Amino acid sequence: VPDTIIEDSDLPVRFSDVKAAAKRIKGKATRTALLRSVELDRLTGGRIYVKPECLQLSGSFKFRGAYNRLSQLSERQKAGGVVAYSSGNHGQGVALAANMLDIAATIVMPGDAPKIKIERTASHGARIVFFDRKGPKTREEIGAQIAAEGGSVLVPSYDDPHIIAGQGTSALEVGEDMIERGEALDAYVVPAGGGGLFAGSNLAVHAAFSDVKTYSAEPHGYDDHARSLEKGTRIAIDADIPDSICDALMTPIPGKLTFQINRRFASGGFSVSEEEIKAAMRFGFDYLNLVIEPGGATALAAVLSGKIDATGKIIGLIVTGGNVDPDFFKTLLE
Amino acid sequence: VPDTIIEDSDLPVRFSDVKAAAKRIKGKATRTALLRSVELDRLTGGRIYVKPECLQLSGSFKFRGAYNRLSQLSERQKAGGVVAYSSGNHGQGVALAANMLDIAATIVMPGDAPKIKIERTASHGARIVFFDRKGPKTREEIGAQIAAEGGSVLVPSYDDPHIIAGQGTSALEVGEDMIERGEALDAYVVPAGGGGLFAGSNLAVHAAFSDVKTYSAEPHGYDDHARSLEKGTRIAIDADIPDSICDALMTPIPGKLTFQINRRFASGGFSVSEEEIKAAMRFGFDYLNLVIEPGGATALAAVLSGKIDATGKIIGLIVTGGNVDPDFFKTLLE
Repeated sequence: VPDTIIEDSDLPVRFSDVKAAAKRIKGKATRTALLRSVELDRLTGGRIYVKPECLQLSGSFKFRGAYNRLSQLSERQKAGGVVAYSSGNHGQGVALAANMLDIAATIVMPGDAPKIKIERTASHGARIVFFDRKGPKTREEIGAQIAAEGGSVLVPSYDDPHIIAGQGTSALEVGEDMIERGEALDAYVVPAGGGGLFAGSNLAVHAAFSDVKTYSAEPHGYDDHARSLEKGTRIAIDADIPDSICDALMTPIPGKLTFQINRRFASGGFSVSEEEIKAAMRFGFDYLNLVIEPGGATALAAVLSGKIDATGKIIGLIVTGGNVDPDFFKTLLE
Repeated sequence: VPDTIIEDSDLPVRFSDVKAAAKRIKGKATRTALLRSVELDRLTGGRIYVKPECLQLSGSFKFRGAYNRLSQLSERQKAGGVVAYSSGNHGQGVALAANMLDIAATIVMPGDAPKIKIERTASHGARIVFFDRKGPKTREEIGAQIAAEGGSVLVPSYDDPHIIAGQGTSALEVGEDMIERGEALDAYVVPAGGGGLFAGSNLAVHAAFSDVKTYSAEPHGYDDHARSLEKGTRIAIDADIPDSICDALMTPIPGKLTFQINRRFASGGFSVSEEEIKAAMRFGFDYLNLVIEPGGATALAAVLSGKIDATGKIIGLIVTGGNVDPDFFKTLLE
């Protein structure tokens, strides 16, 4: 991947940061291989490449950013440990990265978090602190309090330059693999929650392919990136929106740092329905042999449901994670 | 991967054939990446690498051998088309390779083959010919008859040098990836039906690691490789054995050519129970985010169930395919 103008000094993260992150995670994270599916190409009329980060350690791309952040802590910071608030993939990614780097990790989770997520986070040796969703303190407050009391470092889930750079390594690999194949991406589609993965990906894929179009993919109602990109400013989701099946993507508003990057590079955003997401997960089971979680399937759903015209195009998309409840997955197989 | 003694002129296939096959399939087959799982290492006490060929085009490693075989046909042979008898992965692999090479394919299947397998084979443009399992003619006879009448080439599913060499490319990639990591395999475990994949793998992994131990993995009752390797001669399964859930591994006896190779290199074979296979499939869902079919899970089952002592060892294993019936898979998620 060549150096390009993705080194703008106005940006909070640069392509060189993504490349530096790739060196740090080398041999630690799994270098997932691009997948193809004859059926996916047939259905869309394009040539589709899938980056399967559900195969990443900890079950999602989140490990990349966490490892990149934690490996740069000073010895003194490492001794003080880290804190993250997350009931999901970020918590598992931080817990695993901390374990590999011999750092104590505390993960703040709601008391009603799914048992399987609690178990998996704990299995990486993290201390779990529960908070009451209806209690007086938010998880942010509890996280900040624990960090302050213990002299620990708080690890944000997306609005942090090191996290953004780490997540971007996935797209850096996509770029390298496509260049080795002698092919260029026309478009790249990325699930978006806080927009950290999307921001890192925007830097990396535009470094590889200057003409590539990039799109966020979000569930209906939680399409704050799509709306924000359209208006050119950060717009929050509606306050009274019901929960999405995409628990990983229920962030209320794009991150400040992430949107600064995404606004510069992205062509727009897609919004997909619950039915389209479920159909994409089922497609993953039938034709990719991948277990995909709802929030990990939005980019695949956008491409499969024709939100982007793939005819004759080369399109990359990322499947971000596979940490899905077996009972829910079972309903897809009816 | 260095050249070694795996060029013995007594062998029906040599390592140089596997390397030649790798060149033919390059850019056609998916180069699947080795996967790791923190949980797999914890449970086994070893360092386990998984080669996920359920992510291969057509849903199994069979595409590799099929493409290697078909791409070497003469123009005249190509014009006459190909025939294969298989209700499963070999049929789908041949159908897809034929489609990519513009060759007409006829696949002979039992009339009671699962609808999903018929549909997928047909979706690659193959003509399907059904035969009656209880009729006077075997599928071998029908296949031979169709081949003779149409001037077509019969493509065997395992006992063929080009098929063996093609399947071995998966293990060649494993060797390359491990050497790049600077690690050597202590053992490699491979599901075995007719033994074609095991034979090609034996050539390739022994070329990479001269001291590696290799093992077949089969379901109870269909452990003809384990028994044959122990006795040093080809031994058939018992005649009255009931069907296995591993439809891909119900071959009655090791192939002649494949056993000639496997006998030379293999250290032995493991036999796993239906419960161990199901537990491995569930592990694949929970911790690898892979959809694995029963016959594709025997090597993982052997490692997970402690058939091999993995403590402190570096062990590779291949997950061969993911073409599983959704109704069956659903029962694993209860």
